Amino acid sequence: MYRNHTCGELRLSDVNKEVILAGWVQKVRKLGGGITFIDLRDRYGITQLAFYKDQNAELYEDANKYGREWVLQVTGKVQERSSKNKNIPTGDVEIVPSNIRVLNSSELPPFTIEDETDGGDDIRMKYRYLDLRRNPVRKNLELRHKIAFETRSYLDKLNFLEVETPVLIGSTPEGARDFVVPSRMNPGEFYALPQSPQTLKQLLMVSGFDRYFQIVKCFRDEDLRADRQPEFTQIDCEMSFVNQEDILQIFEGLTKYLFKQVKGLDIPDFPRMPYADAMKYYGSDKPDTRFGMKLVELKDLTTGREFVVFDNSEYVGAICAKGCASYTRKQLDELTNFVKRPQIGAKGLVYVRYNEDGTLKSSVDKFYTEDDLKKWADRCGAEKGDLILIISGETEKSQKQLCELRLEMGERLGLRDKNVFNCLWVTDFPLLEKDEELGRYFAKHHPFTSPKEEDIPLLDSDPGAVRANAYDLVINGVEIGGGSVRIFNSDLQKKMFSVLGFTEEKAQAQFGFLMNAFKYGAPPHAGIAFGLDRLVSIFAGLDSIRDCIAFPKNNSGRDVMLDAPSVIDESQLEELNLKVEIKEK
Amino acid sequence: MYRNHTCGELRLSDVNKEVILAGWVQKVRKLGGGITFIDLRDRYGITQLAFYKDQNAELYEDANKYGREWVLQVTGKVQERSSKNKNIPTGDVEIVPSNIRVLNSSELPPFTIEDETDGGDDIRMKYRYLDLRRNPVRKNLELRHKIAFETRSYLDKLNFLEVETPVLIGSTPEGARDFVVPSRMNPGEFYALPQSPQTLKQLLMVSGFDRYFQIVKCFRDEDLRADRQPEFTQIDCEMSFVNQEDILQIFEGLTKYLFKQVKGLDIPDFPRMPYADAMKYYGSDKPDTRFGMKLVELKDLTTGREFVVFDNSEYVGAICAKGCASYTRKQLDELTNFVKRPQIGAKGLVYVRYNEDGTLKSSVDKFYTEDDLKKWADRCGAEKGDLILIISGETEKSQKQLCELRLEMGERLGLRDKNVFNCLWVTDFPLLEKDEELGRYFAKHHPFTSPKEEDIPLLDSDPGAVRANAYDLVINGVEIGGGSVRIFNSDLQKKMFSVLGFTEEKAQAQFGFLMNAFKYGAPPHAGIAFGLDRLVSIFAGLDSIRDCIAFPKNNSGRDVMLDAPSVIDESQLEELNLKVEIKEK
Repeated sequence: MYRNHTCGELRLSDVNKEVILAGWVQKVRKLGGGITFIDLRDRYGITQLAFYKDQNAELYEDANKYGREWVLQVTGKVQERSSKNKNIPTGDVEIVPSNIRVLNSSELPPFTIEDETDGGDDIRMKYRYLDLRRNPVRKNLELRHKIAFETRSYLDKLNFLEVETPVLIGSTPEGARDFVVPSRMNPGEFYALPQSPQTLKQLLMVSGFDRYFQIVKCFRDEDLRADRQPEFTQIDCEMSFVNQEDILQIFEGLTKYLFKQVKGLDIPDFPRMPYADAMKYYGSDKPDTRFGMKLVELKDLTTGREFVVFDNSEYVGAICAKGCASYTRKQLDELTNFVKRPQIGAKGLVYVRYNEDGTLKSSVDKFYTEDDLKKWADRCGAEKGDLILIISGETEKSQKQLCELRLEMGERLGLRDKNVFNCLWVTDFPLLEKDEELGRYFAKHHPFTSPKEEDIPLLDSDPGAVRANAYDLVINGVEIGGGSVRIFNSDLQKKMFSVLGFTEEKAQAQFGFLMNAFKYGAPPHAGIAFGLDRLVSIFAGLDSIRDCIAFPKNNSGRDVMLDAPSVIDESQLEELNLKVEIKEK
Repeated sequence: MYRNHTCGELRLSDVNKEVILAGWVQKVRKLGGGITFIDLRDRYGITQLAFYKDQNAELYEDANKYGREWVLQVTGKVQERSSKNKNIPTGDVEIVPSNIRVLNSSELPPFTIEDETDGGDDIRMKYRYLDLRRNPVRKNLELRHKIAFETRSYLDKLNFLEVETPVLIGSTPEGARDFVVPSRMNPGEFYALPQSPQTLKQLLMVSGFDRYFQIVKCFRDEDLRADRQPEFTQIDCEMSFVNQEDILQIFEGLTKYLFKQVKGLDIPDFPRMPYADAMKYYGSDKPDTRFGMKLVELKDLTTGREFVVFDNSEYVGAICAKGCASYTRKQLDELTNFVKRPQIGAKGLVYVRYNEDGTLKSSVDKFYTEDDLKKWADRCGAEKGDLILIISGETEKSQKQLCELRLEMGERLGLRDKNVFNCLWVTDFPLLEKDEELGRYFAKHHPFTSPKEEDIPLLDSDPGAVRANAYDLVINGVEIGGGSVRIFNSDLQKKMFSVLGFTEEKAQAQFGFLMNAFKYGAPPHAGIAFGLDRLVSIFAGLDSIRDCIAFPKNNSGRDVMLDAPSVIDESQLEELNLKVEIKEK
């Protein structure tokens, strides 16, 4: 070892010890008067090295030559500092070196390696190996390790087996795009990278593995949004001989265990909310329940006053923003512009101020009396000083717009504290989703999700109304995971494929191996998968999953540090029986 | 839950309890006289269900209809068996069912789901989900889980962080073939799947992560041999501020810890053997040290007797097979044919029998006196009753041939007991390997491996003689892992690339990001990687890694269960800007 202590562990009790440290120069502070301090940094902390000219002139001169990020091995004696630093655990002591060995020098880094850096996103990603030296970035990855480790401990104790499923599998055309891998040994054929081990974990249940999990990379060749990566990591689980309640209990347990082990927090039992309620009261299937401000329906109170906008709307809904009656014209315009942005797409925003003096003023005073407005306010639970914001239009669209507005108001009112964690199960998702353009149904979760038993008759009469045994875990408005009870009966699975418009041949071609497996005694089973990237980012209070990934890709799917993807040799293409043909656009 | 007990846990102390079990029908035994037994199986064990016609005629009739692998939920009372089965932990009790629910029926499986099955390799792989129901196969995967889990526990305690490195990286043309992944968003460009996270883990050391590990999938598009898979799993590790001794200590510690935790074995300290000795005494860089029978050099004792075969040979070497002097002509012919097989390629085999009566007889009696033979025998440490087997030719080739012969003799003599574990460090590997055809040197380990400091001057004068700070862990003749101390100095790395014949441009193109990173304060670092598949197969006493992989591929890289790889849609190829062009062969 190049050291016998780390830079994070020396204390007053170590005074007078001879120690050897190794690390990076965080900072050289030349105090003048023959004193120079160097902060030496490693993963575990920072220790001050003190160079006194009158004690060792040679080392003092050397120290003044070292630059940021040089790598030093330091032998010296621990002594008490005269001026202590209460902000760091080693702040009571310093090392007076008797010998320094320069292990490596460093060019000046392209940005400062500090908690708050001057480096922009692009340069930090290009030099990610330097960015990772920064405490906040490294701490995210330490957190990630801890969460993955504790997840395994919890599941191992409950008899789950981690089983590795293959990364080179077959392509499944349904849904998002697969990444494919040409096979040299099988000319003209391709592997696909798994979007999830869904079918393989179901096969493991058929195999009697009983309790499976895997922390596993998954791949999706989608156009990237801020919070998407082409490769991402799932905590993937499946259990046999269980029903929905068992899954919710065990994985609520896992979530609570992680909050306790990793953050020391006791999280109360998770409320459960049917999908229908989530849409009705929050306009979202992943409501942020850290604050109220629920959606309130006003349609019946607004009709017949000749305000055609409301009269022609399928839905009129409101939220009540506490204490915002005093919002200025400018602030209200901001909110109107916010909901009218194309991403949100509302036609406009109606407001009602419930003034402190008890009067009610709105942007639709032409059509509604103060008595009308008072009725709206009452239904919204508004009090003096509150502001009511109203959106109208098609039901689902308006609910989603109100959801965005609610989140914006929550942000403005400081109701979305990153240190508060609200966990929620959303249940009873619809089994199917209609693609209005194609005029056919798609599986909302996936084709193996079981319908609620009491809704099975609706599969023929009203497929859109069938509810699934499917559930999502939502924390602070972020979907952390989801799963379902699976179909384990061949006949019901066939029925499901027929509702989804699969011919028997197509079903056989795509999922034949699973349907065949089900002929040999499939047990009832159910599962869930958590997005590890999202879970870590929620725990870390991050806005993006990128910051909890060691080497993330940018929005064009590029790793700018590795400069990947890249062109490959013609000879390699030839071996793969491939030719690149880029179409003009 | 569909059950309140597993099929592995009921004991005499549970008698009279009402229980609910769920599992698969292992066997239906109709004893006649109104008694039928069903063995119900799950992952945890087997429990006997007893159906007595006179107690419940209806259930008895039903039970006689169930077939192998049906899935049942059974409610019933635990009772003491009249005839106990001492071979299984639940053998003292049986369940007398009061209710049976058939959760699923099963078609007759294509092979028997028993410890010893009648299914051949091909059919078992096609129906791998059924093969995985068999105890020995499942136990291998339980072992794999346990080894991975305990590995993480050990490394976590030592402050290692598990960091996930990307699966979609850049292609590195050197060495084995990469699998590539076309990028839709970056037309004409390709990701590569990592052959190992080598450069990324070194970057993490530059980042100050100090102690990294990852249990990670790696990919190699090579023509497959029995013990190779296109995707395999590594326990991948790297440490900063350490030297070779630290790595050996920590990972010897890991290996001992695993033997203790997983198999309850205390393994003594691992001997260390320089590469040169391994070749000299075992003809292999991964000697099986469960038995002696070392290679003995006889060249000096064989010259000048006009036996041109030996006289013209660079090397004459022998092994001594204890107690084999009585080998028949036929047995000796077998051995000769064994070493003459093209895979081994020896020209012939000379033997010397040291008979029980003290006489010595050889296949070269024409050239050598009994005195000569006695000298050979003495050097070999042979005693009466032993057989000496001699191979001659080029040194390295002959040593490797003797190695194969030694292993064969070890097998024949029962010296390779799968329940005995001999661990060994092989050290001081050559840094470089010469490709005689191309007339250039290649890195034996990889281009970042550091030479021994005292050998650095030889880089110019005699590159082939330079030893590396590289080491392999060998267990029972299987290379379980290997690693090296890395070069962390830019100048030495440049030197190394130049010895390997890289132009500066080529080095920059392939490893530019790593060489750049080294400019910003790279710490001294070293690492190691264990092959998890091989480690598990050694622990399990398996001959192939395939049996410890849930869904392995065959020798053509196919997953016969999933039928992958496969052709993909023309439209998908078009989106990827690719065209398949299969050349006639």
